[in-house]
Amino acid sequence: MQFNIFNGDVTSPKGFKASGVYAGIKKKIKSDMTIIYSDVLANGAAVFTKNKVCAAPVTISKEHIKNGKIQAIIVNSGNANACTGDVGLKDALKMVEKTAEVLNISKEDVIVSSTGVIGVALPMENVIKGIELAADVLNYDGGQDAAEAILTTDLCKKNIAVELEIDGKKVTIGGIAKGSGMIHPNMATMLGFITSDVKIDGTFLNELLKEITKDTYNMITVDGDTSTNDMVCVMANGVADNSEINKDHAEVEKFIDAFKYVNAYLAKSIVYDGEGATKFIEVEVVNSLTKEDARMAIKSVLTSNLVKTAFFGEDGNWGRIVAAVGYSDANFDVDKTDVTLKSEGGTVKIFEQGQGAVYEEEDVAKILKFKEIQVLIDFNLGNEKAIGWGCDLSYDYVKINGSYRS
Amino acid sequence: MQFNIFNGDVTSPKGFKASGVYAGIKKKIKSDMTIIYSDVLANGAAVFTKNKVCAAPVTISKEHIKNGKIQAIIVNSGNANACTGDVGLKDALKMVEKTAEVLNISKEDVIVSSTGVIGVALPMENVIKGIELAADVLNYDGGQDAAEAILTTDLCKKNIAVELEIDGKKVTIGGIAKGSGMIHPNMATMLGFITSDVKIDGTFLNELLKEITKDTYNMITVDGDTSTNDMVCVMANGVADNSEINKDHAEVEKFIDAFKYVNAYLAKSIVYDGEGATKFIEVEVVNSLTKEDARMAIKSVLTSNLVKTAFFGEDGNWGRIVAAVGYSDANFDVDKTDVTLKSEGGTVKIFEQGQGAVYEEEDVAKILKFKEIQVLIDFNLGNEKAIGWGCDLSYDYVKINGSYRS
Repeated sequence: MQFNIFNGDVTSPKGFKASGVYAGIKKKIKSDMTIIYSDVLANGAAVFTKNKVCAAPVTISKEHIKNGKIQAIIVNSGNANACTGDVGLKDALKMVEKTAEVLNISKEDVIVSSTGVIGVALPMENVIKGIELAADVLNYDGGQDAAEAILTTDLCKKNIAVELEIDGKKVTIGGIAKGSGMIHPNMATMLGFITSDVKIDGTFLNELLKEITKDTYNMITVDGDTSTNDMVCVMANGVADNSEINKDHAEVEKFIDAFKYVNAYLAKSIVYDGEGATKFIEVEVVNSLTKEDARMAIKSVLTSNLVKTAFFGEDGNWGRIVAAVGYSDANFDVDKTDVTLKSEGGTVKIFEQGQGAVYEEEDVAKILKFKEIQVLIDFNLGNEKAIGWGCDLSYDYVKINGSYRS
Repeated sequence: MQFNIFNGDVTSPKGFKASGVYAGIKKKIKSDMTIIYSDVLANGAAVFTKNKVCAAPVTISKEHIKNGKIQAIIVNSGNANACTGDVGLKDALKMVEKTAEVLNISKEDVIVSSTGVIGVALPMENVIKGIELAADVLNYDGGQDAAEAILTTDLCKKNIAVELEIDGKKVTIGGIAKGSGMIHPNMATMLGFITSDVKIDGTFLNELLKEITKDTYNMITVDGDTSTNDMVCVMANGVADNSEINKDHAEVEKFIDAFKYVNAYLAKSIVYDGEGATKFIEVEVVNSLTKEDARMAIKSVLTSNLVKTAFFGEDGNWGRIVAAVGYSDANFDVDKTDVTLKSEGGTVKIFEQGQGAVYEEEDVAKILKFKEIQVLIDFNLGNEKAIGWGCDLSYDYVKINGSYRS
């Protein structure tokens, strides 16, 4: 790795301010309003939920990202502003307008994001005051406050930063995310906000985010449900003053590696904090005919309730893993397929060339005692591969999502 | 309905014998070997799992159904003969050959089916003796023994029969099924065996089974996992001596209704006995543009862990239902969509034209107290509709599938 990792966030890169305050949207007094702001207009890119039922802020932000520029992101937690009809759209627009006004920037350069309860109108009086307050306290060390204020039922903050050199200039990339804690009373939302002081071509940044999303945010699963509010948004303000990164830049691969690391870290941290999760499962498919085959097989394994409950029960059940690959659309030949389990407890091949391998049950039991478990599936067919992350299905998942009234 | 329903089975139609015996495949002394036999060669049709990892008996039966004829079905429970390589294929073939030999019929007219543990070779000595024994005790009242012997962890037998008149002749259709109790230690399998004394064109029977499967077995879900061994098989021996049913027969619709009823009943009975299920959920989508849109939306709702846990928690969570429709591939407009909950406890519209409807929480609570709950989703777009069945996700599901070692 040609970059250094540290416990930073969205204000680690130069020229970014952030804040997190309590506006009175959440019932408990916990911060719920965030602004992330760049001193100068930044190149921006974003990816959004593919759910056809998308929240009002997603609709507005899809419009505002079209110019490829972002100067501020306004985020509230505690209310998703989804399934709120025309009122919701007006409210999302008001959030953008108020943010633009207090920061004295163009409203087309503001992205808006919401997460929380769906089907309830935003308390706009509190929201407006919250935006004013969040703008007042914006500061160059506000990244941790921002990381905190975007959370809902998450158990921990999710933030990271890396620094690297491009043209001998220090470039920093920082990010925060909120995860898949289920939101009372409705659904999970995944949000990711990435900042960088890198100078980078806007079109390239957009393509890069879309490509990297396929290998990071789209390769995690907690319960297979896609939210109405999912959004990942990146701002690159160019303050590092490197020569502009594009696909032909001599050090482009170095930047891509670092950018991918930040996004993969945030994606994995969401799964790690998955609701009720007691196991963190990494599934890698190697030697597939295409990358898409590998991705489809991985997603099928990670979303299988039978596989998930097996890991919860510390059961090395290759039958469920192989069956989940079998009903995916992945092209593979079970008679050429191997499955290996790994963790700090050891490595055991449990399935070989279409049949259960010969192994000691106790060796598998040792592997499955650990929280982090890897499943390596070798198709022995081609040269492509992919990797994805998920968690187990526990009593606590059912409890959190099935009895929140109690 | 132009048919009578009664508590019958595969030997209710004329000219069918069946049996269920203990061959020594299961560890506990519970019957595990079944033969269903027609006195005369019957027209046959079958549908099989689409899982690319399919068990040896599925491979063999796919070959044997090609001639459109069945005289006997041999079924063992307790061992799925899946992921057993060449040995498994030879063993499945031996089961067919032995069955043909003891019944003195052609092996091409024998269908073989297995369900149970995967990855373990069949105890062939016991299997062979079991086939001899099952053939010895074949009888015209053996349907209940057969219904019992195909089960694994199912809590109850699943059987039904209907009778109707075609050309003034009495025609009977009977069926048995095994369900989605998870099989120690591996996976769920759905099996359905239908017999009828109707005289019916073989090609038409085949088309009818495939069409009806889409609205019955393919519209149920317990955990979204597809087994390696799923199979539904029908035999029609013509003993009722009606004029042959085909698509142009004057009473074809009457027969289709009765045949569909039997298959829908068996499919629903599998869900009703779903592992750990405390709720039976029927989802109907009406006024969709296409039938396929309705089916996709229904499956997405029924497989959503968030929806399933919500019903377990007796929570009328329209947000999760609408979001699950949203991430399906169904064509719909959320702003035109209504969602209504129904049960013996009442009827409440909870979502209307894209937003939460106005209702009393206590009225919804009353509905959700019942075991059988209907979810009606109105797309208000077209004229098509579909219906499907599933269950909730409970602590017991996790317990059964996550801690079978204990």
